[in-house]
Amino acid sequence: MQTHVRRIGILTGGGDAPGLNAVIRAVVKSATNAGIECLGLEDSFDGLIFPERSRPLTPRDVTGILRLGGTILGTTNRGNPFAYPISTESGPADYSDRCVDNFRKLGLDALVVIGGDGTLAIAYELHKRGVPMVGVPKTIDNDIVETTMTFGFDTAVEFATGAIDRLHSTAEAHHRVMVVEVMGRYAGWIALYSGIAGGADVVLIPELPYHLDRVAEHIRARERWGARFSIVVAAEGAFSSGGARTVKTEGTTERMERLGGIGETIARELEPLTEKECRHVVLGHLQRGGSPTSYDRVLATRFGSYAVELLLAGQFGVMTALHPPDVVAVPIESVVGRTRTVPADSDVVRTAKHVGICFGD
Amino acid sequence: MQTHVRRIGILTGGGDAPGLNAVIRAVVKSATNAGIECLGLEDSFDGLIFPERSRPLTPRDVTGILRLGGTILGTTNRGNPFAYPISTESGPADYSDRCVDNFRKLGLDALVVIGGDGTLAIAYELHKRGVPMVGVPKTIDNDIVETTMTFGFDTAVEFATGAIDRLHSTAEAHHRVMVVEVMGRYAGWIALYSGIAGGADVVLIPELPYHLDRVAEHIRARERWGARFSIVVAAEGAFSSGGARTVKTEGTTERMERLGGIGETIARELEPLTEKECRHVVLGHLQRGGSPTSYDRVLATRFGSYAVELLLAGQFGVMTALHPPDVVAVPIESVVGRTRTVPADSDVVRTAKHVGICFGD
Amino acid sequence: MQTHVRRIGILTGGGDAPGLNAVIRAVVKSATNAGIECLGLEDSFDGLIFPERSRPLTPRDVTGILRLGGTILGTTNRGNPFAYPISTESGPADYSDRCVDNFRKLGLDALVVIGGDGTLAIAYELHKRGVPMVGVPKTIDNDIVETTMTFGFDTAVEFATGAIDRLHSTAEAHHRVMVVEVMGRYAGWIALYSGIAGGADVVLIPELPYHLDRVAEHIRARERWGARFSIVVAAEGAFSSGGARTVKTEGTTERMERLGGIGETIARELEPLTEKECRHVVLGHLQRGGSPTSYDRVLATRFGSYAVELLLAGQFGVMTALHPPDVVAVPIESVVGRTRTVPADSDVVRTAKHVGICFGD
Amino acid sequence: MQTHVRRIGILTGGGDAPGLNAVIRAVVKSATNAGIECLGLEDSFDGLIFPERSRPLTPRDVTGILRLGGTILGTTNRGNPFAYPISTESGPADYSDRCVDNFRKLGLDALVVIGGDGTLAIAYELHKRGVPMVGVPKTIDNDIVETTMTFGFDTAVEFATGAIDRLHSTAEAHHRVMVVEVMGRYAGWIALYSGIAGGADVVLIPELPYHLDRVAEHIRARERWGARFSIVVAAEGAFSSGGARTVKTEGTTERMERLGGIGETIARELEPLTEKECRHVVLGHLQRGGSPTSYDRVLATRFGSYAVELLLAGQFGVMTALHPPDVVAVPIESVVGRTRTVPADSDVVRTAKHVGICFGD
Repeated sequence: MQTHVRRIGILTGGGDAPGLNAVIRAVVKSATNAGIECLGLEDSFDGLIFPERSRPLTPRDVTGILRLGGTILGTTNRGNPFAYPISTESGPADYSDRCVDNFRKLGLDALVVIGGDGTLAIAYELHKRGVPMVGVPKTIDNDIVETTMTFGFDTAVEFATGAIDRLHSTAEAHHRVMVVEVMGRYAGWIALYSGIAGGADVVLIPELPYHLDRVAEHIRARERWGARFSIVVAAEGAFSSGGARTVKTEGTTERMERLGGIGETIARELEPLTEKECRHVVLGHLQRGGSPTSYDRVLATRFGSYAVELLLAGQFGVMTALHPPDVVAVPIESVVGRTRTVPADSDVVRTAKHVGICFGD
Repeated sequence: MQTHVRRIGILTGGGDAPGLNAVIRAVVKSATNAGIECLGLEDSFDGLIFPERSRPLTPRDVTGILRLGGTILGTTNRGNPFAYPISTESGPADYSDRCVDNFRKLGLDALVVIGGDGTLAIAYELHKRGVPMVGVPKTIDNDIVETTMTFGFDTAVEFATGAIDRLHSTAEAHHRVMVVEVMGRYAGWIALYSGIAGGADVVLIPELPYHLDRVAEHIRARERWGARFSIVVAAEGAFSSGGARTVKTEGTTERMERLGGIGETIARELEPLTEKECRHVVLGHLQRGGSPTSYDRVLATRFGSYAVELLLAGQFGVMTALHPPDVVAVPIESVVGRTRTVPADSDVVRTAKHVGICFGD
Repeated sequence: MQTHVRRIGILTGGGDAPGLNAVIRAVVKSATNAGIECLGLEDSFDGLIFPERSRPLTPRDVTGILRLGGTILGTTNRGNPFAYPISTESGPADYSDRCVDNFRKLGLDALVVIGGDGTLAIAYELHKRGVPMVGVPKTIDNDIVETTMTFGFDTAVEFATGAIDRLHSTAEAHHRVMVVEVMGRYAGWIALYSGIAGGADVVLIPELPYHLDRVAEHIRARERWGARFSIVVAAEGAFSSGGARTVKTEGTTERMERLGGIGETIARELEPLTEKECRHVVLGHLQRGGSPTSYDRVLATRFGSYAVELLLAGQFGVMTALHPPDVVAVPIESVVGRTRTVPADSDVVRTAKHVGICFGD
Repeated sequence: MQTHVRRIGILTGGGDAPGLNAVIRAVVKSATNAGIECLGLEDSFDGLIFPERSRPLTPRDVTGILRLGGTILGTTNRGNPFAYPISTESGPADYSDRCVDNFRKLGLDALVVIGGDGTLAIAYELHKRGVPMVGVPKTIDNDIVETTMTFGFDTAVEFATGAIDRLHSTAEAHHRVMVVEVMGRYAGWIALYSGIAGGADVVLIPELPYHLDRVAEHIRARERWGARFSIVVAAEGAFSSGGARTVKTEGTTERMERLGGIGETIARELEPLTEKECRHVVLGHLQRGGSPTSYDRVLATRFGSYAVELLLAGQFGVMTALHPPDVVAVPIESVVGRTRTVPADSDVVRTAKHVGICFGD
């Protein structure tokens, strides 16, 4: 299959993450250098469903995008082409047939799909129906299995850490408890890393059940020690009753986003328990945007560049992954439907406990 | 009165603002160089009410604090010593008597009071009862009259602008409307300046009544032009029915802080009007903390240093003010109870309109 | 003259400064909203000398440039069209004739010229020969007279302050003297402001003659006090023998840039005087680039927008200027050939001295 | 040996790196929580040679230092206690005897030594003479073997990347070649990573011999393609004749620091070859200072915390190392005297080439 790839489509799916443009740039530059033409597909799979929503991408088109957040191709959280039944001349179908058809009509030999668990799963279904693909994992939450790290995570942690730094000074000035709600619906990586990096006093994550009265006791102990303020970092999925975290679907995601509220809830409940002013901040969408850190730019560039190596080697149905210090390929099927969570006994959790961070357990 | 000042008390009151420590440092260094002893009073007027909550401040104590947010003296939004009646041996009184007493017991000749409208008003009452004071104005919102600028504002605008920059990329990637709620209960300076600096499409401020349908029309016009996303910056006090803004008291402030919600409200109401996904972010306490910008560090240092010049000149009952390029003194009584709002016809508003920003009017 | 302006040319000249793109954007948006067409002239006056080096500018062309450093029009430090004699069919001439001719051939009614002292002087000569122009002052050094502030300065000070912050920690760890060379050939504003904002111990500027042995004594006094490190900020033009500063021409500028060296010289000379390790850093070109601060973005936008108001009012031969809180117009002829230097008795210098900064005087 | 450690000494040696304070804090907090007393030794081994230069460290002493650059213990590049012969009552000796003596007199059971190759080698010599120690590797250059990453590197790369971002806009505005000299005497990791992250056009590192005429040809090719500027990133040790890099001693280091100049040299030599204006910037000490990135804070905290686990387990003569995702212990003797350089065939070099970066080879 090695020599067949002459023209590829590139798409980005799911929520945006800092580094998407760096991947696109690396794919386009590496592919062009290898004699492969690139077609940008807009707004995730919409660019395959509606072929007029695609455009050629040359090195000139990706000049200067390395340092930009977002994605020049657009994206969407909706748009599973398997989910929407349509009627066609030849009988009922869903949009996935159309994707396969358009893939051929656009003269593509393969897809590079940059997306999370959900997007990769869809692409893999297309792959099984004859659309060769290489995946590039994308998750700010860092919860995709089989890769030590994904781009976007470092930028999000850096922003959250900066936010915790800022809140420290105001918390200390007012002798308050500040609760910071960070991303992490199913995995507490951002909370854990930014909590350690920001010197937080309490970290609450979905993986570790917690009791707010133990959190309150920790805060009171700090008070007795002379520290009249505390910083609590809570992953958005860190509900003490954890039912909501067991099902991971796009729909749930949307609903939880609208519901929100763990930061606010914790602040409200801690106030009587600690007898201190408790305030909360929700970092929300601020964590997604912005210029990627150098770490994420390098990782994203390595992933994009390696995806082209895989195309040239005819290795499909895989995604790029970081196995430090190397970037390798892992089968998509070993990834979809799984979530990489924080192990309770990992050395990072142990580190956090050693330096005095309370997990409420 | 020139030569009497040998020992001063310093306090910070109200919400914290980046630059408070820079003022404290400048006062302590300048005063010490002029042979004046400094006493730091903790947590606003609490340090006068409870004299054990004070400590000497030397240049060594303020080393390294120039770049720190918050205030090493602590602060509080409560604590008007005129507000709490107490009974003493000599009959009923309020804590203000105690402040005047303790001022003398602590051997102080004058106070440097760094605070907002409310804190300065209290200090001025003490001044009238024989406690010589010099004020340094503090308001992130930049709404104190008689000074072109106050420290903290530039840092808040810089942070809000950075937030808008970040939201741009995610809004554009998802073709969304992002609503950013920034500080500004009675005055829209932060919204206006960060809106211009961040290239926002809509700015909503307390001073200019707006109609959301006009905002929606502006967003739809952008869509027709080809821009599939929009950024709305809303000052927290920009309620279209503006009743809440007319009374400015500490209590109201607290209530509004708990209520919150203009950003969320606007996002919810814009969604059906624009038929676009609308999301919101509340910058909240993030705007207060953090290391001050160089602009704020210089302004804070000038204010602190000039306050000591005023002490040496025996000029009391005044506050420092920026009349560019000079720092001058203005009488406290010309300041208290007034709010500097954005004039509808100011050249900054005109500038915003020239570059296409919609105010919903 | 009010109603004649239908089409304008825009150019940027001299060294680049953060905010140039913000001015261009504001001019294009404001002009387009007022029904005026814009033509971008490339690389300063080259775009008038070679009319093929120009291109239309619409709001679409300036989308997203608000936060970018540099200038999308290009610039150059050379290119005074009055300086290069040429022979034409009608006899000897210089390129300035060609500029006037091309101005007409391109169908322009006026120029918006964004540049420093030198660029504005050239534009003003063209103005006297029938090319109506409005200037926007540009100088990172903040040394243009008749305006309190120019864009680019705040960004440069912010970067220099951040650099001083960084050097503090390494200087302190190694008990070293660190000398930071910042921009400022004829005026020490950047050194003075970043020195105050960064908490420097010594500031050396062209305006104030200094003696290195007094600097060394200050450093030794700090050592005795317990501070085993010191930070010296030196403006690049702060030669203790100041001959080089008296003539300000582009040529001198270039030569001095190549010579460099005040930071290195001071570090070398201080080492024996202080008996401490002395190191130096030259910030150089790092101060020019980068995204403008919010302050500079707002100021640049106000200047650009006001330039269009002036065009519409038919007010030519002037430049925009900040007279806080207003933006106003001042005649170009009151500006050219003059330099705004730091007054020895200004309150900012006094402030610096109050907080213990040594000027070596 | 498990239960013997009741009191430890902590020291930092060699050049400072962002994250040193985070390690100190993690050691002190983790040790205190485990019932171990901590003594801070000042200025590397000076604190053992002169026992009065030590002080107890409690959690209170390390509050707030997580985000500070530098080291609260001080450091020095000199001070190998084996290098300075002294005469004592019992005959000739060097200071290392004194270190062993004082280690006992101070009642210490073990040392935590945070330093580079050189510092760890010295500590290991003491270890062999009965001073149990655990090492924490420190090198901004990331050139210590047996660990994938060291703290400080990410912060340096982030700063260098930001610098390249800034220089991009000024290079583009002026159509110049900008040469950025970054750290890396023996290994080009910083140049390689910041070059990829910053979108540099050329990267020159000690490991890959280069020819400036090939660099010039690359720049000219870019010009023909329409890119009128280029960014060259050069590691300070990237001399095309590489003799100087073969010997790595503290002395050489000092000499090379004084010599400097690869950035300047390349800029000067490229100017005639490219016929373009070439400018250079030396990042120098700016790369050392500053608040560590969140990545470095987490890594440093993990290292410090794990060092205490090793103390408790009685595992000495080892250093902490990152073998992602784990932190492990590796024998010091497998580390000293070796340098981890960039392999010419590593996937990061390949990535760089894929995206068009020229190495001049």
